[in-house]
Amino acid sequence: MKLLYPTSLKLDVERLEGFGVTLHPYNVHKPIPEALIDAEILVTWANTNLQDAAKRMHNLRWIQSLFAGPNDELAAGFPANVVMTAGTNLHNETVAEHALALLLSAARHLYEMRDCQNQGEWPGHLGGFLPDRPKGSFTSLKGANILIWGMGNIGRTLAPHLTALGANIRGVGLYEEIIDGIQVQTNAALPNLLPQTDALIMILPGSKATWQALNAERLAMLPKHAWVINVGRGVCVDEDALVHALKNGIIGGAALDVFHKEPLPEASPLWKAPNLIISPHAAGGRPRYSEALIAENLRRFLAGQPLKHDVRAGGMYSTLTSGKNSTLKASL
Amino acid sequence: MKLLYPTSLKLDVERLEGFGVTLHPYNVHKPIPEALIDAEILVTWANTNLQDAAKRMHNLRWIQSLFAGPNDELAAGFPANVVMTAGTNLHNETVAEHALALLLSAARHLYEMRDCQNQGEWPGHLGGFLPDRPKGSFTSLKGANILIWGMGNIGRTLAPHLTALGANIRGVGLYEEIIDGIQVQTNAALPNLLPQTDALIMILPGSKATWQALNAERLAMLPKHAWVINVGRGVCVDEDALVHALKNGIIGGAALDVFHKEPLPEASPLWKAPNLIISPHAAGGRPRYSEALIAENLRRFLAGQPLKHDVRAGGMYSTLTSGKNSTLKASL
Repeated sequence: MKLLYPTSLKLDVERLEGFGVTLHPYNVHKPIPEALIDAEILVTWANTNLQDAAKRMHNLRWIQSLFAGPNDELAAGFPANVVMTAGTNLHNETVAEHALALLLSAARHLYEMRDCQNQGEWPGHLGGFLPDRPKGSFTSLKGANILIWGMGNIGRTLAPHLTALGANIRGVGLYEEIIDGIQVQTNAALPNLLPQTDALIMILPGSKATWQALNAERLAMLPKHAWVINVGRGVCVDEDALVHALKNGIIGGAALDVFHKEPLPEASPLWKAPNLIISPHAAGGRPRYSEALIAENLRRFLAGQPLKHDVRAGGMYSTLTSGKNSTLKASL
Repeated sequence: MKLLYPTSLKLDVERLEGFGVTLHPYNVHKPIPEALIDAEILVTWANTNLQDAAKRMHNLRWIQSLFAGPNDELAAGFPANVVMTAGTNLHNETVAEHALALLLSAARHLYEMRDCQNQGEWPGHLGGFLPDRPKGSFTSLKGANILIWGMGNIGRTLAPHLTALGANIRGVGLYEEIIDGIQVQTNAALPNLLPQTDALIMILPGSKATWQALNAERLAMLPKHAWVINVGRGVCVDEDALVHALKNGIIGGAALDVFHKEPLPEASPLWKAPNLIISPHAAGGRPRYSEALIAENLRRFLAGQPLKHDVRAGGMYSTLTSGKNSTLKASL
């Protein structure tokens, strides 16, 4: 039995040995070579050869994507009997770290300091003796009310870091529940939660249900000093409404890692919106612990047991694609 | 007995009640009014009236500064029998948070993203599919070797946040010891430690012993990708050597919150040094928990017991001013 692994990232292949399958590297940008076309298992990362593979790999039984949201794999035309599993949890740490970086950059106004530096100006108003957490401001995570919208695995990874820095965390998710000590409510609670929010961190997947979830109406519910951080999907924010909110002081600022269109088009008014931080979809894109997930699923596959994070067998991804109000992250 | 408290910051004065002293607000920029000139206790923050107070307050017995390093109070000419206590630990959280913000901005290249944004350019090379922690790089705190030079109270506050993000922390301090599970060595170990360092965080006080502690020789010991973060004192870095190191790729980058001269002079070559982040002495400047410290020392004062953080009775500050190789922070 052949397992093909991608050379588009570094994998410690030794950790996949001992399963009685042969391991073969392949180039994700070229057609699968004839000698490997009979493989049963395909691990994918950043592939551009999936449509060709879907036509030619007639023995294929399982695709393990390293994306949390394997949209390309789902759309490539593989038959329905090919099991497709997602790279769930491989991006929690990287995306959480980037969200924290953006959040701190916002609170400490590092973007504004940078602009001053480029002008050769010392931004005295941002340093020296300052009031500690003055009312109607977001200047520190200490005591800040932070709302995580999309309380999935990334949010669960991020939350303890924020709590340790002194923030008060609430979550918005699919169900009313307590997750790791954090009170999670549903979208219905947003009119109560948003007005108390100093920073809103969006980690929503892209779906019909989350399309422009942050719209003009909800932006207006935030305090004037509130920041919005989006490391989920660009389609979850109404970009025109956001530009309007920034220009008119309806919110304090925004840091976006994701956009409706990426790269962000030259003509986008976001480029010049005040107090906006643009990050080029850099939060994730670096799966971690891939080998452990592949090995676990390989063990299950060979034992004839259900695989973990099967995106077509119900669970997360079926929720996403059925358009329900999922708040789990289908991230890079 | 009168206690004078400054109006240069917001204090919850109610927490100082019940001690049998009367509490009086005063303006730190004006001479102490005649009606208050007989006060025994003076709490100070960002004062410009200290030399006048030193001449006129003949009943003064104790000054509680809210600075960790009360340089101005020490230099104002108060008689030696006036007890002087520092605002030790009031700045741990704010400085640690800022150091974390600068460190993450460095790892995630937020400063470079900002420059691109200002040019209307999408920095594709910083986003999308990236290798995870490639060799010879500092792109994440995960797995990074971080050296905290000056393992005082701020370093102890910062370290657990870095550890939680996956960094390996070592410390450099006055003694070889284990602090909160972190191995701390002395300056003598720097030739061994610096070459293994991905990010060096300097939290040293300014003193003769720490003058230009990071010089050309030590900069050359760092790996080419290493970053330097300084939230201690500007005099601890040889700025000319740093500019040379940045221009010649001897280190990866630097984020400075403190400088030899502040505001940074227009003519400084630091403004245009590559991969340098300039922050306008913004890490601290916002004491927290002041009331608890004042109350504790007030209780001790009234009981005739030694006060905490007495800067002229040995301990931290005497170490600093005696010019020994202190690594404790005399910060804002």
